[in-house]
Order: sequence, then structure tokens, then C-alpha cells
Amino acid sequence: MPTKIDIPRKSIYRLSIYQRCLHRLRENQVDTVSSAALAKAAGVKSTQLRKDLAYFGQLGTRGLGYNVDALSTTIGDVLGQNKLQPVILVGVGNLGSALLHYGGFRKEGFEIAAAFDLNPRKLPNIKVPVLNMSEAAAFISRHHVKMAILTVPANNAQSATNDLVQYGIQAILNFSPTVLDVPEHVVVNSVDLAVELENLSYFIR
Amino acid sequence: MPTKIDIPRKSIYRLSIYQRCLHRLRENQVDTVSSAALAKAAGVKSTQLRKDLAYFGQLGTRGLGYNVDALSTTIGDVLGQNKLQPVILVGVGNLGSALLHYGGFRKEGFEIAAAFDLNPRKLPNIKVPVLNMSEAAAFISRHHVKMAILTVPANNAQSATNDLVQYGIQAILNFSPTVLDVPEHVVVNSVDLAVELENLSYFIR
Repeated sequence: MPTKIDIPRKSIYRLSIYQRCLHRLRENQVDTVSSAALAKAAGVKSTQLRKDLAYFGQLGTRGLGYNVDALSTTIGDVLGQNKLQPVILVGVGNLGSALLHYGGFRKEGFEIAAAFDLNPRKLPNIKVPVLNMSEAAAFISRHHVKMAILTVPANNAQSATNDLVQYGIQAILNFSPTVLDVPEHVVVNSVDLAVELENLSYFIR
Repeated sequence: MPTKIDIPRKSIYRLSIYQRCLHRLRENQVDTVSSAALAKAAGVKSTQLRKDLAYFGQLGTRGLGYNVDALSTTIGDVLGQNKLQPVILVGVGNLGSALLHYGGFRKEGFEIAAAFDLNPRKLPNIKVPVLNMSEAAAFISRHHVKMAILTVPANNAQSATNDLVQYGIQAILNFSPTVLDVPEHVVVNSVDLAVELENLSYFIR
């Protein structure tokens, strides 16, 4: 089994996508899947899929494809049982409260344990406690929180990040429209909804 | 000026990010920026930045860097004045209504003209009309809508996509946790929040 270091970041990302497809196949009582079919479901080339899975040794049987259960278990072992991680959300503005209302994270195995804001206010119909940023350090330490969803305005994003990293956050899902400068041990994934739309608009005839 | 076809998809994507950084620089009264500084702000390697910008010919001055205004204008010309595109949102469940509450798209130049659902219901505090899916074809045609945000459940995503493409949609921002099969003239960008979190959780020690 290779160590985490050996697998490229983008392969790890695609493993999550393969895993999602495998779960769907299992729900549909599909037992085996060819690399071509799994690649198509995941939206990647089958050469890419085979290369990604080759990091774990020989998994499929030529001509038979992959056993859905076995492959899913292997990928699950690699990705780790980290899914029940507590996550905090920082910045309860429009997007932050929208994500708190969303609720879909929980279904996927992530629980937003608390939300933080400089000016916390009670949100209707939300069970997640909204706390003052000044309580973040203690909360993160007490609940061993390693992951944060960042939804603060762009001009606060770097200083909020600096604080979170100091408090022990190691992974940030960044919705602020800015690039964050973080130490090497911290991982950031960014989702910029406006950039996604702007990018799409380029391709419209 | 190269045609759209000549610039790789990923370069176009990064141009939106550079543009966002240039706007921030301009707000901060910065007139010129080195490729190294702009690359750092955008979170890319400076070789990558120079390669992306080389598609437009010689833009910077060696030793002086880029003129912020001029570069922003050039990139704006390439990306087009498509930003005031009307967008529809399809699927008013938890995430869909969360995005309607968000409001940040408008600030960025995109207006959600209407939302559609199989069972439309009035949303409190939302000005965007929520219409029945059966009205989508007529609405898309009348308002020349080319872009859609897709927030339907995974098992409805492909059939909703097929309908939207048939009605004239050319670009889809897909939040459904599934890979969409679309004709070549249609572009899809996918944002899967659970995959983002799962991916991050892998890197936590």
C-alpha cells in the first residue's frame, strides 16, 4: 500500500468521484463494472482511471472488469474513514447561511459542528450554533476540528485563514473569491461560483 | 487575436482568476504588477501565467511587468462581455433555494432570471420567480437564456439536462453529484461540495 505522499493530489480527488460512482452502482445492484464504463460514469478517460487505480496494484480482472464492492472497499481504505469529521463554517453572510440551510453536507457524512462570525446572529430554522469568532480557538481545540468551510468576504479571508491555521485547522474549503496563502501542511480547495459562471459564459455562442 | 478554439479550456478558466486579481489590484490603486506577483496572487506558477498570457501576444514589458489596466482590458475582451447573461436555476431543493438566497451572483454580474422546479413553491424573501418546469422551454426561448445552474437530485440530473439542452441551454453549472452526458456544443462545470470535503479530509493527519 503506497503512503499518502505517493499518490498525486489530482488522483486522490478523482478517487472520491470514482467512489461516488461505485456507490451508485451498488445501489443499482451492479456487481462488476468495466474500466471503460466506470471511467465514463466518472467523466474521465479510461486510461486515466486505470492509471489512478494502478497506484493500488492489480485490482481488476482482464475481461471481467472491477468488482464493485471490492473496489469501493479499497478506495474507502485509501480515502480513510475521515468522513465523519466535524467541520466548522466561518463567515455567516449570505453564502454562509445558504450553506447552513443546505444541509446536504450531513447526508454526505460531514457535520457542521458550529458556525462562526464576527457578529453572530441567531438563524431561523438552523440547528447549528452560530458563535462569535472569539470562541473559535477554544471550540476547535475542544472538538478536535481540522476542517473549515470559509465563507467570509474576500478582504477578510486571509486574516481569518491565518487565525484558523493557528487554531489547528488543516483543511479549508474556500468560497471566498481570493487565493489563500497557507503553510505547507494546510490544504485548500477553492470554489469560486462567479468564476465558474464567468468561465461558462465564455463558451456561449 | 486567436479565436476561441485556440485557447485551452483550462487557460480560459485561469483568465477569470487573473481578471479577479487584477480587479483587486486596481481597487488598491496598483498600476503595474510583475508576472511573479500576479501568479502568486492567482495561486499558479509564474511559468503557467506567462504561458496563458502568451496566447494574446506580448503583453508585459520585461523588468516592468504588466500594466494592470491594459492587461485587465485585454483579458476582458477575450472573456467577452457575456457577464450580464441571464441564468436560470433548475431544482429548488435545499441547495437550490440556498443559492437563490445567496444573491452573490448578481453582484458578480449574473442575474438569476427565474428558477424552475417540478413542484414550484413560493420562497419567502426571494424575488426570483419560481416556475414550473413545464414553463422552462418557453422562458428559455423568450429570454434567450443560455446558462443554467443545475441543483436537482442526482437521479434527475441527466433527464433535466437533456431537456435544458433541447430548449437551448449551452452552459451548465452542475451542483448535482453526477457526471452529465451532453452534446459537444454544451459546456458543463461541476461543483460537488461533498467531493471537495471528502478530498480535503484525506489530507488531514
